Amino acid sequence: MTHPHQRASQNGRRKFLMTAASTIGLAFASSRTSALGMDLHGAGMTVQQVIDLILKEIPGAPFEQTVDTLKSGSGQQVVTGIATTMFSTIEVIQKAAAQGVNFIIAHEPTFYGHTDETTWLESDAVYQFKRNLLDKHKIAVWRFHDYWHTHRPDGVLIGVLTRLGWDKLYNPSNPPIVNHAGISLRDLVAHSKKSLGIRQVRYIGDPSQVCKRIALIPGAAGGRAQMQLLMKEKPDVLIVGEVHEWETAEYVRDAQAMGSKMSLIVLGHAESEEPGMEWLVGWLSPRVKDIKVTHIASGNPFREG
Amino acid sequence: MTHPHQRASQNGRRKFLMTAASTIGLAFASSRTSALGMDLHGAGMTVQQVIDLILKEIPGAPFEQTVDTLKSGSGQQVVTGIATTMFSTIEVIQKAAAQGVNFIIAHEPTFYGHTDETTWLESDAVYQFKRNLLDKHKIAVWRFHDYWHTHRPDGVLIGVLTRLGWDKLYNPSNPPIVNHAGISLRDLVAHSKKSLGIRQVRYIGDPSQVCKRIALIPGAAGGRAQMQLLMKEKPDVLIVGEVHEWETAEYVRDAQAMGSKMSLIVLGHAESEEPGMEWLVGWLSPRVKDIKVTHIASGNPFREG
Repeated sequence: MTHPHQRASQNGRRKFLMTAASTIGLAFASSRTSALGMDLHGAGMTVQQVIDLILKEIPGAPFEQTVDTLKSGSGQQVVTGIATTMFSTIEVIQKAAAQGVNFIIAHEPTFYGHTDETTWLESDAVYQFKRNLLDKHKIAVWRFHDYWHTHRPDGVLIGVLTRLGWDKLYNPSNPPIVNHAGISLRDLVAHSKKSLGIRQVRYIGDPSQVCKRIALIPGAAGGRAQMQLLMKEKPDVLIVGEVHEWETAEYVRDAQAMGSKMSLIVLGHAESEEPGMEWLVGWLSPRVKDIKVTHIASGNPFREG
Repeated sequence: MTHPHQRASQNGRRKFLMTAASTIGLAFASSRTSALGMDLHGAGMTVQQVIDLILKEIPGAPFEQTVDTLKSGSGQQVVTGIATTMFSTIEVIQKAAAQGVNFIIAHEPTFYGHTDETTWLESDAVYQFKRNLLDKHKIAVWRFHDYWHTHRPDGVLIGVLTRLGWDKLYNPSNPPIVNHAGISLRDLVAHSKKSLGIRQVRYIGDPSQVCKRIALIPGAAGGRAQMQLLMKEKPDVLIVGEVHEWETAEYVRDAQAMGSKMSLIVLGHAESEEPGMEWLVGWLSPRVKDIKVTHIASGNPFREG
């Protein structure tokens, strides 16, 4: 079962070892700095120190219940580099290792379920491959979902708004609602695709309809949450990452059939939130000083056919 | 909020009244037949009698817990015509009314959630419009989901297999697995689209890969169920209606990255099960004799853009 990524990841491992070695030097430097009474930020920080630094800026953190836990690695390991991503896919892990990164901050689950519960996966070859890859490269994966959405502004939302050129339209008193000067649904589809780098979206509505009141919830908030927003806010269009087709899509289809102009654009889950994890790079970099923070896009897994 | 369907539904209502009047005659005829000791099947049957007749052929029915309940109308109303569909959308209800049909058998929820719980919807305009439409036309909607999947063969699966030209490949000992002579993923995508009348599908995998062992689960069985089938059966490709993108799609993406050729085709929920509700017409018609059974396709609500 040899595959094209295997060579890349071996190269990556060599690069990782070199980077780790040079980082040890930096870690000592950082310890000295700390001994002089300065902030222990930057090179030499552990995974847990980076997490704690982030949580200091999240209202109400730490939460008693959250899916934002370490999925691999240790809080005690010294960070050699940080990669932000939507999904810590096998490919993202291999790219991170190749860049000498040992800390991935991912928005979504690593192990194919919201809670990353793995008992049911223990004997599965795909799970084992991914787990072994993480262990081999000593990569810590932390999920940054609940906390990032709780940040004000919601880190994902502001990242997406920024990429759409709508950051000035951010609405602190009602974040999901964007009051736009007016754009046809057709042009809104085109603008979303171009701004967010999406090949194709699915939508429900009349392409010529004018949209002014736009509701934006990247990701898959769930049918009930999406529909309750529609009921409460009565937007011209709702833009989401993913729907349950038998819930939100059917509600919007019925709304259209009764004469409402409420429309729906489904961007795709990964691509709808990726800009929020890219935006995290600019937010986190100055807080961790010498640690390099990069974004590795996990991208859209689908082809259209 | 006048809309194009309103006129059609007024015409439909006239037609409904005429059909209902002519059906009363048939109902009397049927009662006489019944008094002569013959089966009370066909004209004159109530909604509940049709349901009971169906349940007699479902292993283990009636179930203590099921979502297959009446969503509107009464079990006591005399059936004027039956329409099968995937989703009892507002448009499907209007078409049924126009055809003088007062009993819709739908595979999926009417009110935007698996259990059709409506407390949260009471003050919503879309819900009220749909509810009023059903009341006005005195249309009973029964969900036929759990029972139809429990029928042997699974009514949805055999309908889809038949439309794919694979009914001879039905595998009673392991229904989701189709052993195919061999077809490229590219051709399988094309064949699925053409056979099932789908404009576009989304898929993950190498288009040139040959697929022999095909797993087919129409609808949205849930990520855990879909992935457990992948783990157990190791098919070349899994064909489903809908996925949670953060579950099944990510598992398949990782499987591909580790060198597995396990692929995924996502047909769209409505279109993936519609053939099973169309197949129901041929199954049910001879069992209800004089009652006309037709299929009204709810179709795919999405546009691609």
